Amino acid sequence: MNRICELFSIRYPIIQGGMVWCSGWRLASAVSEAGGLGLIGAGSMHPETLREHIVKTRIATSRPFGVNVPLLYPEMEIIMQIITEEKVPIVFTSAGSPAKWTNWLKERGIIVAHVVSGSVFALKCEQAGVDAIVAEGFEAGGHNGRDETTTMTLIPAVRKSTSLPLIAAGGIGSGGAMAAALALGAEGVQIGSLFAASEESSAHPRFKQLITTLKEGDTKLSIKKLAPVRLIKNKFFELVDNAEQNGASKDELLSLLGKGRAKRGIFEGDLEEGELEIGQVSSTIDTIEPVSRIFDKLINEYNTTIGKLSVL
Amino acid sequence: MNRICELFSIRYPIIQGGMVWCSGWRLASAVSEAGGLGLIGAGSMHPETLREHIVKTRIATSRPFGVNVPLLYPEMEIIMQIITEEKVPIVFTSAGSPAKWTNWLKERGIIVAHVVSGSVFALKCEQAGVDAIVAEGFEAGGHNGRDETTTMTLIPAVRKSTSLPLIAAGGIGSGGAMAAALALGAEGVQIGSLFAASEESSAHPRFKQLITTLKEGDTKLSIKKLAPVRLIKNKFFELVDNAEQNGASKDELLSLLGKGRAKRGIFEGDLEEGELEIGQVSSTIDTIEPVSRIFDKLINEYNTTIGKLSVL
Repeated sequence: MNRICELFSIRYPIIQGGMVWCSGWRLASAVSEAGGLGLIGAGSMHPETLREHIVKTRIATSRPFGVNVPLLYPEMEIIMQIITEEKVPIVFTSAGSPAKWTNWLKERGIIVAHVVSGSVFALKCEQAGVDAIVAEGFEAGGHNGRDETTTMTLIPAVRKSTSLPLIAAGGIGSGGAMAAALALGAEGVQIGSLFAASEESSAHPRFKQLITTLKEGDTKLSIKKLAPVRLIKNKFFELVDNAEQNGASKDELLSLLGKGRAKRGIFEGDLEEGELEIGQVSSTIDTIEPVSRIFDKLINEYNTTIGKLSVL
Repeated sequence: MNRICELFSIRYPIIQGGMVWCSGWRLASAVSEAGGLGLIGAGSMHPETLREHIVKTRIATSRPFGVNVPLLYPEMEIIMQIITEEKVPIVFTSAGSPAKWTNWLKERGIIVAHVVSGSVFALKCEQAGVDAIVAEGFEAGGHNGRDETTTMTLIPAVRKSTSLPLIAAGGIGSGGAMAAALALGAEGVQIGSLFAASEESSAHPRFKQLITTLKEGDTKLSIKKLAPVRLIKNKFFELVDNAEQNGASKDELLSLLGKGRAKRGIFEGDLEEGELEIGQVSSTIDTIEPVSRIFDKLINEYNTTIGKLSVL
């Protein structure tokens, strides 16, 4: 029995990334209904909006689901309160220390996974008592680690450093890549980009459409002086990139960024001025499909792939 | 039958990267003797040194081997002449256009593979008539593509774009990663870092020793204004990195680099002032071993890994 399936009581070891402005109740419930683990992305929600999405997810599916909480956002106490009040069974934390909330959540019977970008952080997760680790590589969209370690090199390193259940993230957009992640030592996968472009994603149709046209090299890890984030190379990216190349200070970068850029791009569809977060694997996405079809394809490709690997 | 094994007449679909200052006759012949494809790295050799290594390789093994030729070096006509005179059966070209030498080599009965960092270049290989493609990801050591596409995302993209035999490179340091590469759609792997640190590598013992101590984040893609190259973060790296961060011009960078930096670091063991090229996967290498043991481990791990992947 796969430990990730067992831990979350799901059929397939496929977790949907809790992405800002993409992962509302529609996407999370569709993924859970398809047999994976749907995650509501709290990062882009006011606390009461989060509550609404939790309630709606529970109406839309009777299967397990979770909430992804980037720990860098304000109002953390209120968010965690809502999560316990609404009896969310699973929480994925990211962008912060696992030492801060893991105990509190586990005392309330909640299963906790934490996202890391290196084995050093994996050890901290173990010490904090998390139930599973997501190790996310350089190719992933959105916020990213400073070491630039890719999924191919990160997963074996984290696997070596901990015996905790391990989920691979970054660059996984096909059943073949799922099989690759498991061959590297992961027991499950977290998929972002494919679901960001799905029918049930709450991203703006213009953003989804853009994803289907991207080629290799159309995203880049950017804003490294503040917190590295993988972006589509649009007008806003060029602005930030030029500033960085010319030695802009942190304050100058912060004022360039302003507020609400991700909402403007991903949710409102401003493809020029918005901050467009997506993974490298977007270069292989060419259609917008419903979650159920994405699952069918992933499982079929995975099974075909492992059937073709023969002994040497 | 695996197409890569068939094409090169080898037992295992494992190619040893033709790395500067590491890949002489000792390493190449050991790899070929172990059942893979050994490559002499012409990039760091004067033409007559290359001839000497070809002759010695042929004495040390009766199995197929090849030469890796980075097309950016001078004296290309002389190098290609020596390769044909010495009847080298296989040539891997890199760092240049496959259109330039592929025909000439193939007319002389030589099997040609070319190294690319993106599917656009894979198509050019097809048009040029190469026999196989090496697709090398961002995590690889040494010279690297501009798009920063990782192995996890590159291999499925290149697999989609061409039906040519495909070899994955970058981030492959275990049998699990070999299985991952094959799951992604490759038919063979090219391995660099593991062999750079092997007993038969001609790198300086201090360089090999350093490799065994590296952690995640200890290498970085650098010198992006000239030609991106992945380096260990040593004193020389910091010098170049600071210059780049402060907006140094190409000329300033060129004069900082000077000449012979890779030789100084990798071959002569100057770990401070030398240019130390190695892949991200070095973080998982902790011993210096003979090639035969590396092969045993790779094959065992590969077979164990694929035996554990079960249908979903």
